[in-house]
Amino acid sequence: MTTADLLRPASRRDRLAAWTSQLQDEITALFESLDGGRFAEAVWAREGGGGGAARLLAEGAVFEKAGVNRALVEGILPPEAAGRLGGNIPAGTTPHFFATGVSVVVHPRSPMVPTTHLNVRYFELTDADGHVFDAWYGGGTDLTPTHPFPEDAREFHRALKRTCDAHGAHLYPTYKAWCDEYFRNTHRANEARGVGGVFFDHLRPDEAAHGLDEAGLHAFVTSVGRALATAYAPIVRRRRDLGYTARDLRLQRHRRARYVEFNLLHDRGTLFGLQTGARTESVLMSMPPVAEWPAPEDPEPGSIEAALAAMLVPQDWAQEG
Amino acid sequence: MTTADLLRPASRRDRLAAWTSQLQDEITALFESLDGGRFAEAVWAREGGGGGAARLLAEGAVFEKAGVNRALVEGILPPEAAGRLGGNIPAGTTPHFFATGVSVVVHPRSPMVPTTHLNVRYFELTDADGHVFDAWYGGGTDLTPTHPFPEDAREFHRALKRTCDAHGAHLYPTYKAWCDEYFRNTHRANEARGVGGVFFDHLRPDEAAHGLDEAGLHAFVTSVGRALATAYAPIVRRRRDLGYTARDLRLQRHRRARYVEFNLLHDRGTLFGLQTGARTESVLMSMPPVAEWPAPEDPEPGSIEAALAAMLVPQDWAQEG
Repeated sequence: MTTADLLRPASRRDRLAAWTSQLQDEITALFESLDGGRFAEAVWAREGGGGGAARLLAEGAVFEKAGVNRALVEGILPPEAAGRLGGNIPAGTTPHFFATGVSVVVHPRSPMVPTTHLNVRYFELTDADGHVFDAWYGGGTDLTPTHPFPEDAREFHRALKRTCDAHGAHLYPTYKAWCDEYFRNTHRANEARGVGGVFFDHLRPDEAAHGLDEAGLHAFVTSVGRALATAYAPIVRRRRDLGYTARDLRLQRHRRARYVEFNLLHDRGTLFGLQTGARTESVLMSMPPVAEWPAPEDPEPGSIEAALAAMLVPQDWAQEG
Repeated sequence: MTTADLLRPASRRDRLAAWTSQLQDEITALFESLDGGRFAEAVWAREGGGGGAARLLAEGAVFEKAGVNRALVEGILPPEAAGRLGGNIPAGTTPHFFATGVSVVVHPRSPMVPTTHLNVRYFELTDADGHVFDAWYGGGTDLTPTHPFPEDAREFHRALKRTCDAHGAHLYPTYKAWCDEYFRNTHRANEARGVGGVFFDHLRPDEAAHGLDEAGLHAFVTSVGRALATAYAPIVRRRRDLGYTARDLRLQRHRRARYVEFNLLHDRGTLFGLQTGARTESVLMSMPPVAEWPAPEDPEPGSIEAALAAMLVPQDWAQEG
């Protein structure tokens, strides 16, 4: 860094880079405290601009695999990615992009501890000279149980509702519904990936739907990025020392196969990452350590398999009482 | 069936239905003889027309999971499938389709026995009155080793070359190259799924590229449909009783994860099946019983992992000498 760089006022992109860097550090510290183990970091550069830092905790005491990744990528938007992206691209322009985000996927060792995923991201489209013609935030977090504990779904959703309500009472219901809509295995009769959470994309400042200005929107997304400390950590502490059976482990491997199917067939973030030249190992850190595709069978009434299937129907988990 | 049906001369579609039915029976018998176990059959109907028979051999002595599926589906072509299909659809028409095929995927229990896949299919596009405006054959078979035995790749390819050569000397080299091009994990630096085989699609009668008339084309595709008896069965018999280690099993699970990635991210047949309303469990019978996503690492020189990686570079396996 030159003296000129040091004297230059921090640009919006600098501030956003610092934002994802800090969130990554906070989330890393949270999961290290829950597990007792340490993350290893692999830094990668993207051909075409930018790169990332992939942090992996493998074979931990609590987490079989936990990934806390940060990316900051920029360059010319590949045409096949432009179609999926949903941004406003003026006709006749070659869109350039800048994006930074943090992605978290953890696969606990114990089937009694649910899996969680979190992502927050900022995205902007510019022309070749850096003139911004569209910019937005996206993100969310959701819970995927591998053993049926309805109280975990309630605790996760109530904590998310409190997090969102601090920024506006209409946010949680809207983004909870969006999450239920998004995380569905449409090829499996719309079975949900898990019990949902919140999900949002293309949130631009001062839109009537959310009513947040630029600072308010940034603060809201930051709160979502910090939500696992209250929404997920208490569940891990309550479940991590429970005993479990070989059957519980088998059900966990079956559910992980559905997780694989969703991420490779339907998840826009995964497909976007693979199409835009992000590091494959970082994009696919969401893959579970081990997955099992069983022969088809209907769960027995009263079984843990049936109880878990019932939890995968979207419902009002945050309702008090 | 009415008397009128019985007296009606067999239509082209009737003959094609009998063709896939017979191939399915032959392949089922082959794998039952290799394993000693029996397939169970699940018959399914497709909303919108047609259906299939999924035959599954689970937990066999040799095959942890073997699927031999037949489908015969017809109806209105979903618009999202039309784009991927590659057929000639006249502007302004609502395409109807008729398709029948047999798909085989086997996942052997022993990592010393390679996985194989085979598919043959006939596809036709018509208007609402059944007037055919395009029709073609597709298919192929390939080998995916989970332990590095180069002689298995040679034997498989030499048998396929003999099978193809009986119908024309130009067929094997063309369709071997097409297979190498198709079964690549483009998101994994173009790593091949396995050691290839043959692959072809959109083969229409009397095209200069293959020089086969309708009867010749049908005979060629039928030979490919029967190829596993000479190309794969001898490999199974040679390898099925070998001992193996926990490390061999781990490498098998790692390779199976790449198999999952290819089928869910890239395989046109899988995506077409899921989009056109075929039975999900039948389309996804190609999923391995268990897959493992390891933490990224480079294979040690001289290891079985390195030897297998070297086999995944396309090469001239059928060369004699």
